[in-house]
Amino acid sequence: MLNPFFKNHGPVKISQIIKYLNIKTNTLNEDNDILDIKDLLTATQNDLTFFHSNKYKDFAKKTKASFCLTSEKLKNELPKSCKPVIVENVLVSISKVTSIFYPDSINDDFDDSVTTINKTKFKDKVKYGINVLIGKNVSIGSNCKIGHNTIIEKNVVIGENCSIGSNNIIRNTKVKNNVRILDHCTIGKHGFGFFPTNNKNLRYPHIGIVVIEDDCEIGCNSTIDRGSMSNTIIGKNTYLDNQIHIAHNVKVGENSIIAGQVGIAGSSIIGNNVKIGGQAGISGHLKIGNNVEIGGGSGVIKDIPDNTKVMGYPAKNIRKFLRDNKWLIKQQ
Amino acid sequence: MLNPFFKNHGPVKISQIIKYLNIKTNTLNEDNDILDIKDLLTATQNDLTFFHSNKYKDFAKKTKASFCLTSEKLKNELPKSCKPVIVENVLVSISKVTSIFYPDSINDDFDDSVTTINKTKFKDKVKYGINVLIGKNVSIGSNCKIGHNTIIEKNVVIGENCSIGSNNIIRNTKVKNNVRILDHCTIGKHGFGFFPTNNKNLRYPHIGIVVIEDDCEIGCNSTIDRGSMSNTIIGKNTYLDNQIHIAHNVKVGENSIIAGQVGIAGSSIIGNNVKIGGQAGISGHLKIGNNVEIGGGSGVIKDIPDNTKVMGYPAKNIRKFLRDNKWLIKQQ
Amino acid sequence: MLNPFFKNHGPVKISQIIKYLNIKTNTLNEDNDILDIKDLLTATQNDLTFFHSNKYKDFAKKTKASFCLTSEKLKNELPKSCKPVIVENVLVSISKVTSIFYPDSINDDFDDSVTTINKTKFKDKVKYGINVLIGKNVSIGSNCKIGHNTIIEKNVVIGENCSIGSNNIIRNTKVKNNVRILDHCTIGKHGFGFFPTNNKNLRYPHIGIVVIEDDCEIGCNSTIDRGSMSNTIIGKNTYLDNQIHIAHNVKVGENSIIAGQVGIAGSSIIGNNVKIGGQAGISGHLKIGNNVEIGGGSGVIKDIPDNTKVMGYPAKNIRKFLRDNKWLIKQQ
Repeated sequence: MLNPFFKNHGPVKISQIIKYLNIKTNTLNEDNDILDIKDLLTATQNDLTFFHSNKYKDFAKKTKASFCLTSEKLKNELPKSCKPVIVENVLVSISKVTSIFYPDSINDDFDDSVTTINKTKFKDKVKYGINVLIGKNVSIGSNCKIGHNTIIEKNVVIGENCSIGSNNIIRNTKVKNNVRILDHCTIGKHGFGFFPTNNKNLRYPHIGIVVIEDDCEIGCNSTIDRGSMSNTIIGKNTYLDNQIHIAHNVKVGENSIIAGQVGIAGSSIIGNNVKIGGQAGISGHLKIGNNVEIGGGSGVIKDIPDNTKVMGYPAKNIRKFLRDNKWLIKQQ
Repeated sequence: MLNPFFKNHGPVKISQIIKYLNIKTNTLNEDNDILDIKDLLTATQNDLTFFHSNKYKDFAKKTKASFCLTSEKLKNELPKSCKPVIVENVLVSISKVTSIFYPDSINDDFDDSVTTINKTKFKDKVKYGINVLIGKNVSIGSNCKIGHNTIIEKNVVIGENCSIGSNNIIRNTKVKNNVRILDHCTIGKHGFGFFPTNNKNLRYPHIGIVVIEDDCEIGCNSTIDRGSMSNTIIGKNTYLDNQIHIAHNVKVGENSIIAGQVGIAGSSIIGNNVKIGGQAGISGHLKIGNNVEIGGGSGVIKDIPDNTKVMGYPAKNIRKFLRDNKWLIKQQ
Repeated sequence: MLNPFFKNHGPVKISQIIKYLNIKTNTLNEDNDILDIKDLLTATQNDLTFFHSNKYKDFAKKTKASFCLTSEKLKNELPKSCKPVIVENVLVSISKVTSIFYPDSINDDFDDSVTTINKTKFKDKVKYGINVLIGKNVSIGSNCKIGHNTIIEKNVVIGENCSIGSNNIIRNTKVKNNVRILDHCTIGKHGFGFFPTNNKNLRYPHIGIVVIEDDCEIGCNSTIDRGSMSNTIIGKNTYLDNQIHIAHNVKVGENSIIAGQVGIAGSSIIGNNVKIGGQAGISGHLKIGNNVEIGGGSGVIKDIPDNTKVMGYPAKNIRKFLRDNKWLIKQQ
């Protein structure tokens, strides 16, 4: 798949990768060109993949990749067509290798390709404010408004009938149609993903993007981080209030409503028709079902099934919450 | 009352309103001009009002409006001088009608009336930074400072001796005297009020404004939304720390202190001399008395009487909080 | 010590200070020049110090200052070489006197000394965006990038290899080497410290600065306030996620990781290798040890010893948290 946001600097020889990872003994007989780095399922014959947890055993058995970064313990799960490349820490290694293929995805330096919009082809097409900056290869649909001091960085795609407010920074993002982004938002920067080390943390590459589907509204001073390997997605007709933080890889469903100061940690998946009250927080890697209601201030640390109402910290079923706080319905 | 922020596009014929609302049978004999849309109490003879809940029965009986959007069930509470216009959903209908009278109050597109301050009459009157943008009909008192990249949108009123920092966006707001607004604030955008529908949410018009009384301080990266029908008010000598969110219609009293990252949901009323600790959250439509102290991190979901100290989530009287957490005063 | 950020307007005669504080009877025989105002420990012979709580008795006995603002009750703890100046409220008085020595430290009006970077000596030295503003006496090391619309106010020091994003405001701050500051941050404004009065709050002077040590990353839309008497410090290789608020005088250790929307109240000290989950809050004046883990959403209101894992509000040892929430491991 063509990723317009992060240029693939491959192909890279497998011998170069082995050298870069400081692997002492290269037991491979061949020295293939590696075209890309992908997960177990999507990798094809010319790609390198990675396998770091027994949880993915079933995917590992079926991978089509010719080479796989993995550990001594897991290597036997791979099919014969896939040669293991044994490393000490699979995730650190995949991070390092991804940075060879996608060096631009590590750090988010400001986009120096931008020019003021009145010097671009959007001059007569977009209604724009003062000091609007547009990067290379940006695409903007008809009937859009972009407010003062907003920066649309390179390759960003904006659909039709969008109203973007003032002082926003948008990068690595696809905005669909009829979307409203208010003011002071930062959308599409890399997620808070890295390998902590005591000298200098190692940033995990983020080659995912942010996708904002049709008819969404994003409130003021909000931040939405782009994904690492997958995308961060805000579903159709979902509204976010002010000061929301959406971390990398999060997927929010359609017709959901997220009130002020809510935070959703990395890789959590939120269903359709979900209502989240102000200041609620949702831990990472959770699954929140459809038609869920989360009370304001709740701290969600477990999956929530469909059609459930929860409240509290840790968040529990609303009936249990009320049972545990009977004093609420008496005189305080 | 003249609302300088949202132009009233009335008068509108009552027959036009009935048509717009898709009401099949118009049982009215007359076709009056409607001048404005107001609540039960403030409406006069030439206005349209609305009545959607039995809670407002006493006001309904006394309304001076000639016409009232209401339901079959409630219509008999109205005086004879007020003709009911029966609709399925009163709030959705009032929202639609308000958008006829005040079409500019629905969406907050950027203000394209602004010019750089050095081309305005404030050139020699205000101390200003680089790239300061001022909208039409803005009023600024003597001895004010406005920092770099700040945008003061049309009709905003700023008193004397105010210090506005950099990168702020201020719209639909009256700032009184001696007010300090620090940096990166977004003040006066519409509240997070709308009718959720599965295809496309219907925004509720926000024709209220933000009023910041004398001697206030508003911290960095804060957001204060304007009211829907009434105003959002920050009382005299009240200080807000950084990253505060104040939702629409909230009224904060005088001499109050609100620490970092606090959020106050829509329509809550906060008294005088109230202290709110960092990250506390207050649900919507609550009444917090005078001289109340709310501990940091608290989640307030009930009214709080005067002179009370609360803490916890859900917030409870501090004595109960300490009784319920006796371990706090022992060895952890 | 030379403070490049806040010019000391001293010396000031002790008689002037007494007059300014409205002290009726000056019982001093001499009228020395006071060079500076310092705490009990660091004051030297020509400085004024202050002593407001019995807690600091041992320091008071050893102070080298010639004069000390204190109360009738505490004055006898001072050595003979230090003359007491009796005031009603020591902290209010010290605040007033500090504002004589450091008038620029009270209010953070925008820096009107800035010019666009292409008119400064950094024109060919720094890689910069559009509308970058640089104040007087700013220092920037080699190989730095500064994004669009960012404001670096007067006297700020930035080390080598730093990447500063777009729309930031940085003042009263020393940024060391290899630091990354993302977008929309406000760094170095005064803390939320003042003496509440019913007419007009009295701002406490903030003559401390912000120090960001080597290899740190500061996420988007974050705020870091400068110190009042001491500095606010972010330790080496510590990473902050988006929408973090760090209040005045806070010291965060090395190699720590602070997730999104965390808030740390004034004067708390955080150790090394500390991990703080999203939306957690830490009250003021606490000591959090080394290698501490604080779960997301926690509200910390007590000190935490080294090597401890806590969670909850109020935050408790993780074992107690799980014991108190046994339902978490059963069916919900």
